[in-house]
Amino acid sequence: MIKVGINGYGTIGKRVADAVSCQDDMEVIGVVKTKPDFISKMATKRYKIYTTKTENIAEFKNKGLNVEGTIEDLLDGIDVVVDASPEGVGAKNKVMYEKHNVKAVFQGGEKHELTGISFNAQSNYRDALNKDYVRVVSCNTTGLCRTLKTIDDVAGIKKVNATIIRRATDPGDPKKGPINAIEPVLKIPSHHGIDVKTVLYDLDISTMAVKVPTTLMHLHAITVDMIDKKTDLDDIVRALDKARRIILINGSDGLTSTAEIMEYARDLGRRRGDLFEIAVWKDGMNIRDGVLYYYQAIHQESDVVPENIDAIRAIMGMEDAEKSMDLTDKSLGIMK
Amino acid sequence: MIKVGINGYGTIGKRVADAVSCQDDMEVIGVVKTKPDFISKMATKRYKIYTTKTENIAEFKNKGLNVEGTIEDLLDGIDVVVDASPEGVGAKNKVMYEKHNVKAVFQGGEKHELTGISFNAQSNYRDALNKDYVRVVSCNTTGLCRTLKTIDDVAGIKKVNATIIRRATDPGDPKKGPINAIEPVLKIPSHHGIDVKTVLYDLDISTMAVKVPTTLMHLHAITVDMIDKKTDLDDIVRALDKARRIILINGSDGLTSTAEIMEYARDLGRRRGDLFEIAVWKDGMNIRDGVLYYYQAIHQESDVVPENIDAIRAIMGMEDAEKSMDLTDKSLGIMK
Repeated sequence: MIKVGINGYGTIGKRVADAVSCQDDMEVIGVVKTKPDFISKMATKRYKIYTTKTENIAEFKNKGLNVEGTIEDLLDGIDVVVDASPEGVGAKNKVMYEKHNVKAVFQGGEKHELTGISFNAQSNYRDALNKDYVRVVSCNTTGLCRTLKTIDDVAGIKKVNATIIRRATDPGDPKKGPINAIEPVLKIPSHHGIDVKTVLYDLDISTMAVKVPTTLMHLHAITVDMIDKKTDLDDIVRALDKARRIILINGSDGLTSTAEIMEYARDLGRRRGDLFEIAVWKDGMNIRDGVLYYYQAIHQESDVVPENIDAIRAIMGMEDAEKSMDLTDKSLGIMK
Repeated sequence: MIKVGINGYGTIGKRVADAVSCQDDMEVIGVVKTKPDFISKMATKRYKIYTTKTENIAEFKNKGLNVEGTIEDLLDGIDVVVDASPEGVGAKNKVMYEKHNVKAVFQGGEKHELTGISFNAQSNYRDALNKDYVRVVSCNTTGLCRTLKTIDDVAGIKKVNATIIRRATDPGDPKKGPINAIEPVLKIPSHHGIDVKTVLYDLDISTMAVKVPTTLMHLHAITVDMIDKKTDLDDIVRALDKARRIILINGSDGLTSTAEIMEYARDLGRRRGDLFEIAVWKDGMNIRDGVLYYYQAIHQESDVVPENIDAIRAIMGMEDAEKSMDLTDKSLGIMK
């Protein structure tokens, strides 16, 4: 039984905690929260809570919430910590994990250099085997890796250009914008393509990105110059249909936007209405002169959750990537 | 004096009417409205109003609005009609224009085949000389033509891929969506690239498009594979800076999104806060391996207005494109 702690119980942390709970070979020893807010209250119903420093404990007690101790206490009782703290904070936490001799899975908000190994289960699981520290790439990078790896395997990729149309913030956040504007990422290429290369090492990819006023999903408009110019749409569709953690959808079925995709996900009955899979429009694809064009939608809150589970198994030494992904996908009800 | 009528007084029609009024060589004889709403009320303060059929006249009178007659009465007294009626309605109106022997400028909502000549002043003014019917291309196509023609002249274009991030509807429309979703145009290539080729005849261009919850502007993320691989950013910047109806802006000046661009436009003091120019981010451009990447923002309500004015002059026989554009730009306060 792999003993797991979750440091940070926000959008990603709470989902990873629930996913770890579903695994037969793992258990959640505790989760770390800073403040005794409604999220902590919910967390106490499922998990033991730890906090970042001794001074916080009284604050939790005042609100009637039981705290087991500080994060350092938690670290003494676990094999792996999933660091789901805010962007950049993971880098500071690493010193503490080293001190306690605990392996760690970081998120895409941290720099690649923090761990030297960035992770996407379908692309490079074995490169993380038995490592002490690994970084699961961001939601956008995860989505790009899943489909591009599949396409590269079937057709070979000469060059990718993609435009990332990003949601402004997550549905539960009332603070950030824009609420009526389109905001381009002026640094070209945007970091997304550069990040893909931390997983698909030899891929030639450039990305541009814009932020738009929506909260549900990101959407990618992708152009792939293929090496094998004889590849036809059927080859691509067949490969994507077979690949893990990708679903093919059709606008003709009424799935015309990210709104309908998330409505579909809620109807699936999963906790929080999550969609772990990358949704690719089958009837929104074309090939012209050996160039493949397609759209995909990314549920930014959840697509990295199965990757975190596989990353835990990889650093804990499970050699068989397919077996890990089988276990993860079955436990989370991932469709295929 | 060119006698002009405007059929349709919505987003485009009212702006074209005002722009025609600013020209020394044109006058607005009348505008055509269907319903006696607040827009008609505003219109009566500046223009003579005609309506689509005799039955409507009483309705206008009941609201205390004076109507000069029907559109057929208007057509008998003008040289050119600018058809700014809803998408597809222009095609039906053409029969009437033919009957009255009146030249017509249609908008981008109509098909290219309706006129056989599609128009962008900087790209193909002379092809419209003395024609009876011409179609000014849509706001997005106009924006693409302006910058791509400029880039083609300086570097040569091998191939363009662009993603069009479209505003959901115009600011004054409370009815359409989406309000929280991204909606891709599943037909690839989207019509935008195809439409550019009705003006830049030999350009190899493919476009993808998504609709997003904003009303202010469209935004394009554009990738240009250049023929002259020695072209550097300075060459491109210099050419765009010199070209008409394009302005270079900088994120570093606080113009980080379409919201700030439109705030800037409102501060310019033009009627309705319009921005006739295409805004290109100077600090949001890059060249990698002979491929140029840039972003541009399009004020969908107004960028075609100067094109309508030049289209009128072209079909009325003014041979000098530069002279027409000089007159238009000066009268509308277009920046350079």
